[in-house]
Amino acid sequence: MALGEFDLIARYFSRPSRRADVLLGVGDDAALLSVPPGLALVAATDTLVEGRHFLAGAPPDSVGHQALAVNLSDLAAMGADPAWALLSLSIPDVSEPWLESFARGLYDLAGRTGIELVGGDTVRGPLVVTIAAMGFVAPEQALRRSGARAGDGLYVSGTLGEAAAGLEVLCRDPHAGADDLLVRRYRYAEPRLELGRALRGRASAAMDVSDGLLGDLGKLCTASGVGARLDLASLPIGDDLAGRFDPATCERFALHGGDDYELLFTVPPAVAVQWERDRAFGCRVTRIGEIVAAGGVKCQRDGRVVVASGGGYDHFSS
Amino acid sequence: MALGEFDLIARYFSRPSRRADVLLGVGDDAALLSVPPGLALVAATDTLVEGRHFLAGAPPDSVGHQALAVNLSDLAAMGADPAWALLSLSIPDVSEPWLESFARGLYDLAGRTGIELVGGDTVRGPLVVTIAAMGFVAPEQALRRSGARAGDGLYVSGTLGEAAAGLEVLCRDPHAGADDLLVRRYRYAEPRLELGRALRGRASAAMDVSDGLLGDLGKLCTASGVGARLDLASLPIGDDLAGRFDPATCERFALHGGDDYELLFTVPPAVAVQWERDRAFGCRVTRIGEIVAAGGVKCQRDGRVVVASGGGYDHFSS
Repeated sequence: MALGEFDLIARYFSRPSRRADVLLGVGDDAALLSVPPGLALVAATDTLVEGRHFLAGAPPDSVGHQALAVNLSDLAAMGADPAWALLSLSIPDVSEPWLESFARGLYDLAGRTGIELVGGDTVRGPLVVTIAAMGFVAPEQALRRSGARAGDGLYVSGTLGEAAAGLEVLCRDPHAGADDLLVRRYRYAEPRLELGRALRGRASAAMDVSDGLLGDLGKLCTASGVGARLDLASLPIGDDLAGRFDPATCERFALHGGDDYELLFTVPPAVAVQWERDRAFGCRVTRIGEIVAAGGVKCQRDGRVVVASGGGYDHFSS
Repeated sequence: MALGEFDLIARYFSRPSRRADVLLGVGDDAALLSVPPGLALVAATDTLVEGRHFLAGAPPDSVGHQALAVNLSDLAAMGADPAWALLSLSIPDVSEPWLESFARGLYDLAGRTGIELVGGDTVRGPLVVTIAAMGFVAPEQALRRSGARAGDGLYVSGTLGEAAAGLEVLCRDPHAGADDLLVRRYRYAEPRLELGRALRGRASAAMDVSDGLLGDLGKLCTASGVGARLDLASLPIGDDLAGRFDPATCERFALHGGDDYELLFTVPPAVAVQWERDRAFGCRVTRIGEIVAAGGVKCQRDGRVVVASGGGYDHFSS
């Protein structure tokens, strides 16, 4: 039975508010929200298109998770505390099991991270999911891409390349199970919110790695007006990836694979000492190189500059 | 020539900021924004899908205009001052003339209304445009749907039904010119921001009419826990509509036609006297009935209750 648009939104996406700063949530023309005094609002939006950002037939809960995760990752990269989300859902037809699973994936992650859905729009159309995420940070502590300086250490969280490997596994075998760790890394990225908060006042620049390390590092360098030396031997490759692909393929995934949603950041030398002692960031952190004055991104192996192939993933050049 | 995603966004959607409250705009992981102390943030999102919310082949500037206008209309319905917008654009291919025209339509309306594009995402996919719009209002002055009380006067801005008639004109003749006033009403809705501001502290409830007067009035009544008496003879039908369609068709457009983006609002009797004297709202305002204690929405003609056919436009039941 086809549900009306209004019923749809009411049934799946309007849960009682648990945040005191939501003055008015889902159901009116707009949400009314209260930003804490002295903090800046952080706002980002990301869109997932079926067949491009997730595979046709992907588990709906993974689509709901991913749509929110990629936006939370943007908030993490700013050092923000997540607060509110707006959901725009274009779906070809109203499948209640699909919606239920999608909502479960979205709300599970929302519940764990403290972000609340405060409004949205549901329309009939191709499967396209857009979320706009909002959060807070003290403006002077926000992590920008533009603050890296020569001599800063270059770091990345977690491990790299597993999501891209998971996508390749799925392309070879669309029925690869949810028990495959690489597939899980692709479908259920974990936004590095705890690390983002810990980087406030420590990192000189930060961004999330969504389109591949090498391409994203290039963007950070451009924004900061610096170059970088990347030490290929130090790339954090997880055991699960290393055990299933040869070293060259692992390196390719780590350098160019998309969907990692790890944080790439730079830390001034004075901060770095304290930084490396502190391990309470909810994830592994690895020093992968250093910021230099200019010259773009140069990859090194055994102390020598080597050429790494092409840039990162680009939705329009691929 | 295919442009990279990054170049695209940079070329068409990153203009110098003119708002002092934009601490960091397009180009980082998220925007950093400053909400004035004491005001609530108002946030809404609306999505347009090609072939559903606008016709395939619609002038790109009208798509850019409409995508922003429908969101500004939500802010107007809350009595908010517009501030910032996030754009998510899914497009099948990179046509620079299309993007240029789309951006022109969007920025023309943005410039006139003071809203600024502070971030977004551009992806390859079916043509789907989502905007999240943010603004401010003093929380105690926000216009909600839920405040209507029995005895309040029921008002609507502008004229009704022209946009729906414009769509019908286009469906009959896809080449109907931009000089057709009905077609212009469909493609270039004007959000009632000035009126929304004037209604602060005056209206007891408000919403925008996007899915047809009768259906939307039903939503307002449900949210407020009241009924309404709608006087069909008082529906504001513009001369251009009345001159081209018979009275019954005009009434059908006015009651059920979507895309009006007028404001529907209620005013307590004590306020109504002052209200009806004041004409400085940037548009015509018409009293079309009265709020009653219960009984849903009843249409009256010549003092007698008549049955009006079906509800408003619904993206999932149509």
